[in-house]
Amino acid sequence: MDFTPSPRTLDYRKRLIAFMREHIEPAEANYQKENRRLNPDGNWREWQVPPMVSELKAKAKAAGLWNLFLPDDKLGAGLTTLEYAPLAEVMGHSLLAPEVFNCNAPDTGNMEVLYHFGTKAQQDQWLKPLLKGEIRSVFCMTEPDVASSDATNMQASIVADGDEVVIRGRKWWSTGLGHPDARFAIVMGLTDAGAAKHQRHSMVLVPLDAEGVIIERMLPAFGEYDAPYGHGEVIFDNVRVPKANLIGGLGDGFKIAQGRLGPGRIHHCMRALGAAEKALQLFMQRGQDRVAFGRPLLQLGGNMERVADMRIAIDQARLLTFFAAWKIDQVGAMKALTEISAIKVAAPNVLQKVVDETIQLYGGAGMSHDVPLTALYAMARALRIADGPDAVHRATIAKVELAKYRDHPNVRDPR
Amino acid sequence: MDFTPSPRTLDYRKRLIAFMREHIEPAEANYQKENRRLNPDGNWREWQVPPMVSELKAKAKAAGLWNLFLPDDKLGAGLTTLEYAPLAEVMGHSLLAPEVFNCNAPDTGNMEVLYHFGTKAQQDQWLKPLLKGEIRSVFCMTEPDVASSDATNMQASIVADGDEVVIRGRKWWSTGLGHPDARFAIVMGLTDAGAAKHQRHSMVLVPLDAEGVIIERMLPAFGEYDAPYGHGEVIFDNVRVPKANLIGGLGDGFKIAQGRLGPGRIHHCMRALGAAEKALQLFMQRGQDRVAFGRPLLQLGGNMERVADMRIAIDQARLLTFFAAWKIDQVGAMKALTEISAIKVAAPNVLQKVVDETIQLYGGAGMSHDVPLTALYAMARALRIADGPDAVHRATIAKVELAKYRDHPNVRDPR
Amino acid sequence: MDFTPSPRTLDYRKRLIAFMREHIEPAEANYQKENRRLNPDGNWREWQVPPMVSELKAKAKAAGLWNLFLPDDKLGAGLTTLEYAPLAEVMGHSLLAPEVFNCNAPDTGNMEVLYHFGTKAQQDQWLKPLLKGEIRSVFCMTEPDVASSDATNMQASIVADGDEVVIRGRKWWSTGLGHPDARFAIVMGLTDAGAAKHQRHSMVLVPLDAEGVIIERMLPAFGEYDAPYGHGEVIFDNVRVPKANLIGGLGDGFKIAQGRLGPGRIHHCMRALGAAEKALQLFMQRGQDRVAFGRPLLQLGGNMERVADMRIAIDQARLLTFFAAWKIDQVGAMKALTEISAIKVAAPNVLQKVVDETIQLYGGAGMSHDVPLTALYAMARALRIADGPDAVHRATIAKVELAKYRDHPNVRDPR
Amino acid sequence: MDFTPSPRTLDYRKRLIAFMREHIEPAEANYQKENRRLNPDGNWREWQVPPMVSELKAKAKAAGLWNLFLPDDKLGAGLTTLEYAPLAEVMGHSLLAPEVFNCNAPDTGNMEVLYHFGTKAQQDQWLKPLLKGEIRSVFCMTEPDVASSDATNMQASIVADGDEVVIRGRKWWSTGLGHPDARFAIVMGLTDAGAAKHQRHSMVLVPLDAEGVIIERMLPAFGEYDAPYGHGEVIFDNVRVPKANLIGGLGDGFKIAQGRLGPGRIHHCMRALGAAEKALQLFMQRGQDRVAFGRPLLQLGGNMERVADMRIAIDQARLLTFFAAWKIDQVGAMKALTEISAIKVAAPNVLQKVVDETIQLYGGAGMSHDVPLTALYAMARALRIADGPDAVHRATIAKVELAKYRDHPNVRDPR
Repeated sequence: MDFTPSPRTLDYRKRLIAFMREHIEPAEANYQKENRRLNPDGNWREWQVPPMVSELKAKAKAAGLWNLFLPDDKLGAGLTTLEYAPLAEVMGHSLLAPEVFNCNAPDTGNMEVLYHFGTKAQQDQWLKPLLKGEIRSVFCMTEPDVASSDATNMQASIVADGDEVVIRGRKWWSTGLGHPDARFAIVMGLTDAGAAKHQRHSMVLVPLDAEGVIIERMLPAFGEYDAPYGHGEVIFDNVRVPKANLIGGLGDGFKIAQGRLGPGRIHHCMRALGAAEKALQLFMQRGQDRVAFGRPLLQLGGNMERVADMRIAIDQARLLTFFAAWKIDQVGAMKALTEISAIKVAAPNVLQKVVDETIQLYGGAGMSHDVPLTALYAMARALRIADGPDAVHRATIAKVELAKYRDHPNVRDPR
Repeated sequence: MDFTPSPRTLDYRKRLIAFMREHIEPAEANYQKENRRLNPDGNWREWQVPPMVSELKAKAKAAGLWNLFLPDDKLGAGLTTLEYAPLAEVMGHSLLAPEVFNCNAPDTGNMEVLYHFGTKAQQDQWLKPLLKGEIRSVFCMTEPDVASSDATNMQASIVADGDEVVIRGRKWWSTGLGHPDARFAIVMGLTDAGAAKHQRHSMVLVPLDAEGVIIERMLPAFGEYDAPYGHGEVIFDNVRVPKANLIGGLGDGFKIAQGRLGPGRIHHCMRALGAAEKALQLFMQRGQDRVAFGRPLLQLGGNMERVADMRIAIDQARLLTFFAAWKIDQVGAMKALTEISAIKVAAPNVLQKVVDETIQLYGGAGMSHDVPLTALYAMARALRIADGPDAVHRATIAKVELAKYRDHPNVRDPR
Repeated sequence: MDFTPSPRTLDYRKRLIAFMREHIEPAEANYQKENRRLNPDGNWREWQVPPMVSELKAKAKAAGLWNLFLPDDKLGAGLTTLEYAPLAEVMGHSLLAPEVFNCNAPDTGNMEVLYHFGTKAQQDQWLKPLLKGEIRSVFCMTEPDVASSDATNMQASIVADGDEVVIRGRKWWSTGLGHPDARFAIVMGLTDAGAAKHQRHSMVLVPLDAEGVIIERMLPAFGEYDAPYGHGEVIFDNVRVPKANLIGGLGDGFKIAQGRLGPGRIHHCMRALGAAEKALQLFMQRGQDRVAFGRPLLQLGGNMERVADMRIAIDQARLLTFFAAWKIDQVGAMKALTEISAIKVAAPNVLQKVVDETIQLYGGAGMSHDVPLTALYAMARALRIADGPDAVHRATIAKVELAKYRDHPNVRDPR
Repeated sequence: MDFTPSPRTLDYRKRLIAFMREHIEPAEANYQKENRRLNPDGNWREWQVPPMVSELKAKAKAAGLWNLFLPDDKLGAGLTTLEYAPLAEVMGHSLLAPEVFNCNAPDTGNMEVLYHFGTKAQQDQWLKPLLKGEIRSVFCMTEPDVASSDATNMQASIVADGDEVVIRGRKWWSTGLGHPDARFAIVMGLTDAGAAKHQRHSMVLVPLDAEGVIIERMLPAFGEYDAPYGHGEVIFDNVRVPKANLIGGLGDGFKIAQGRLGPGRIHHCMRALGAAEKALQLFMQRGQDRVAFGRPLLQLGGNMERVADMRIAIDQARLLTFFAAWKIDQVGAMKALTEISAIKVAAPNVLQKVVDETIQLYGGAGMSHDVPLTALYAMARALRIADGPDAVHRATIAKVELAKYRDHPNVRDPR
């Protein structure tokens, strides 16, 4: 249980912070404005990436702050999950930052999948340009017509037919589907309903220009389309791709998904905690700068108590996330189920609470786009649903606890 | 403490419910779609009202379900605050309904101000067309640069200059300012900073086409522009209107505002509780219809407990709002401070909680526009800030409690 | 929905308050001290009633403040459930008061059972002396070995044998069993496990001196034995009583229990709210009188917000309890299931919360017997378990809600 | 940030767990019964220690599980704060354990004070027998007449008079004062109200048989006297002791108190978390073993969600406490203010919440002495007040946060 940041982490963190202060923070307000100007909500088919993004990405790449998430020390920074965690937190302070450092979902998860499970050909075709930040990708899992919290509900099908596989079904909340640079999706679907529970599903690479890929719309998340990424609803209407597009083999979908989710949840949660720190910073700022009834807001009512409660909550959730990251590195995600599920419940709820309090302190401004609070709120709210809703993670934790109790009803072995 | 619905309330309620089922519910989904098509967020200067609104309004007027909020029995329905409360709740089930029945904020409040404090000329010019639903109006109070929770912070000025008054300042969150039919605003501003605390401010009628009225933008509230109403930011750049546009006299602003707020808060809170009932209904629906892990969602985890807690919370808040309404009718808003502040805290928080739980049950759909949950959430969130944030109302209640304690430290007189 | 206190209620309330100020409040501290001196925890078989209790009871009876709970206007005050509710609240301010006014549980419930369901002979023998306050009684329902929240678990048996019935089993949390004046218990038990669900149980009157009644011990409730009442554990070891001791007939237990529970829960909840008002009063007192860091505690941190939240919570719970009482009077307890269960959850939780905050403000003193806070806490905590734990009441509410939804999936009929 | 348990910790933990399973758990129920029999609440002057305690202590000493808290590797185990923390958690599973291992408050704190600040003579006279477990000691700080949360309120005085110091004042909640082996108290009092804020107070050793030491009573904490320890109220009526009894010099009280509090709070919090684990274990046990409505309680309502939430809360609080312990070891308690205050708020609140849920699951049994839940509850409740109430710790955290914000308003440096 050693969470000491490694020298590499310390070095990257210092450089990340410097980069964010020098390049990202000053650009952020302009970015938001420019982005909303370029990409009004209605017309997602014409969305563009504000030019400053490419410039910032080039700078980040030049500074060596690129692909830090990838555990490979040639293709990425070779950091462990725990080493990367504090860096994800730093990036979480800005909604723009993850892309600038080529560390944003779902590309990170997709790159990890290709890195760990992709063939050489798949890596050459898809992983390389992703690692360069030239293209973007999509992950298609959630479906509109069933409770996707229960993966066995999945209805989209991935079926072999000769040298091809055929994909049929409807997916939504496919993040990044509206992006002009999005080139392919990793699609998960049902291959064999009669197989063992965790061998029923497959994952396949589907180019977005394949025949039968019909993007219907972008979905607003709490009113935000998150241009130029977007959260799309897409139909796969008898889409055919070569069998070589399968990741692993038929029936390997679950196994791959599990591997994808552990570190991905660490990234999400650490970014959420970075976002919570950002919101708390905004709370302090407003609380100090704005005066009512003759005193700064911070000195009114229970606001100082709120500061304390937010600090306690953030610090606890961070340590728990470090612990989950450490366990993933030490014993693997499958033996860190409780911890991964625990942070997946804890971190987004902390963020939601902190943002809600901060919005309240900002009053009307807090609900507008003048401060990034509603975007942070949408991030929290979405994260309580995506990658398994709170309820599913609570159920996992409780099941593990019950199994532990059954095995050792008198156990008193603290960790 | 008699909350028995009067025969008039029972009759109106029955007819309202029938009208909503027959006309509004079936139109609602279309309205939302049509409205978003007609009024994409960016171009508020070209916003239009979907034609079906005029049709629904005409039907409602023909059905005698019109201006029910107004206590005058010729101009309105002559209902007391308590009599109107259950009707406001019914309207709260639909975001479209209040306008259809000509009962939506801020017009209701403005009509009440003109009804109680307006001159004959003011009533002829502004109240009559409002009562007919031909025009719409705006209330300008909140300012961006100060904590508007403390009214003494107000910086906009309303100063007499000969036969005219001059308005200078900046207001925002002026709801309805983007509406194509909006014709005038009631503006509150500082007249005499040296006067007694509650005689410093004035209210004045300002036509929106007056010279110097510069509408800068519409503000998104949790990503929603609420077209075709909008929440505007507006500059009054030395706007001059005749003295006859003053409501009451110089310095009467506070007095008028106080009268406006009591019943208005009842309306807001009852609509919020209607919205909470709507959200609970959606919770039940999703909970019954959607299946995960082999059971309807309602039967999983703590969802049935959530149903109970939501029911308890809504029912308690409704009774408290009835109590506040009853006190306003019996002894006036100034003697119902605790109750009005109490519901202003309780009802929006209940709505926020219920909507949050319902979103969680809907998963991704809950964050989209496919169900009206984010709009209900925005309503709750805004209402915790508008008309005095939670903190201000809590402070009011506590001050009253402290005064009571000081007067009767041993009092044990239950209500 | 008319909660207006009747003239009788107003009159009784005024007189109750006066009596409590004049007689009970001054006696209370002495009572507690004397009671603890007379009745140390260990020796419950020698418990005595402090003499001042009889004196106070005589005064209350003389003042006509006696048996106010009983709806019969000759034997009691003839008040409806709603009329009595505010009086129960007044009594709730003092832990001593209910007995002084002959209105304390479980005697009130037992008297109601005998009043509604007892034979003339049973009434003569048991009801009359109870109404005079000469004896006390016990209600035996909860059992140690099963989850008593599920009444079908009940193991104690009541079986007919010739002209007698035989009672076998173990009960606990039989309140009042340690009282020197306790003379009989109403025992509920299983008669016919094969009968229809609500016709399996019977109720029988058992004199405490019957052979085979073995009182094993008094149970502490959060460390309090509540002498001289006590919460007892008792074995019925083949106890035989005449069939004439049955209340109603064999199999009528459930029906009688249901009738008992409605008004009884109103009494409990109103007393709990009176206790919450008492605790809030103590909060204000400590908050004003004690100074830290240069300011009265009330002015520190979020304490004023706490005052507001407590006021809001108490007022909401009171109105909901009035509503439940009103429904019981209007349509009977069986049609007020939601409301009765709702208050049973809401009121004790409000009390627990208010007392917890008040203890916190008192610091060490709050945990001692110098203020009555731990006793009020124990009252709240016990009440969340007794007469159905929170979980059971939440389940009831949710079931009703689900049935409503199934019947009227679009229902929007507010109450 | 390395929380890895050291080999010594692992070894001690294993042995502690074995000892607890073999010796303490089997003795516990008997101990509680015997203790209550020997020491009925009323007669604290005759309290005795149940003989089994000495036997257990002898065994623990023989097993080398003795004085583990003391950082000296000759007198104690030489463990750091972090190394000892998991051992304190193990002991927290049983209310009896800390004494058995000679690791119970307030003796541990007093031994640390004597170890760090005592003279050779003081150590010989008082520390040695404490380390042997032959005598017990008391710490007198809290006073009944002032808000002791604000140490500057302290009224008891410690004044030099020739070769002696004179102690005057009243203290309460002096834990252990009722113990038959208690021999001395460390008393804190005001020496010079005009000195710099942190140099006004002194600490002095006062033998309990000194003239003028008048123990008035033992205070019940939530109805528990905690015999044979007790929480006493004591008057120091011009008690005179030699100047050699001063710890440090006049005015050193604060400095010594600060040093005492850091590790002490770690011990308290870890024991609280051990207690929370114990309560959670009881929750699982009852939840599995008891059946209602045809299913184990665990499978009803939201109980599995509760398990998850309790697990998340405990694990987060444990990590935060490890973090605080680690910071104390690395940079000292004065630079770990936020973390120490954070755990002081977090851990007892977690315990209180877990115990409250567990009591609810146990129903009536949970409120009795048949399970140790009310004792664990009292522990939690007391701990939220002792050593600084929640409010004071929240204020500390918020002040530090505000200072950080002022120094680095843009700081984004995660820990």
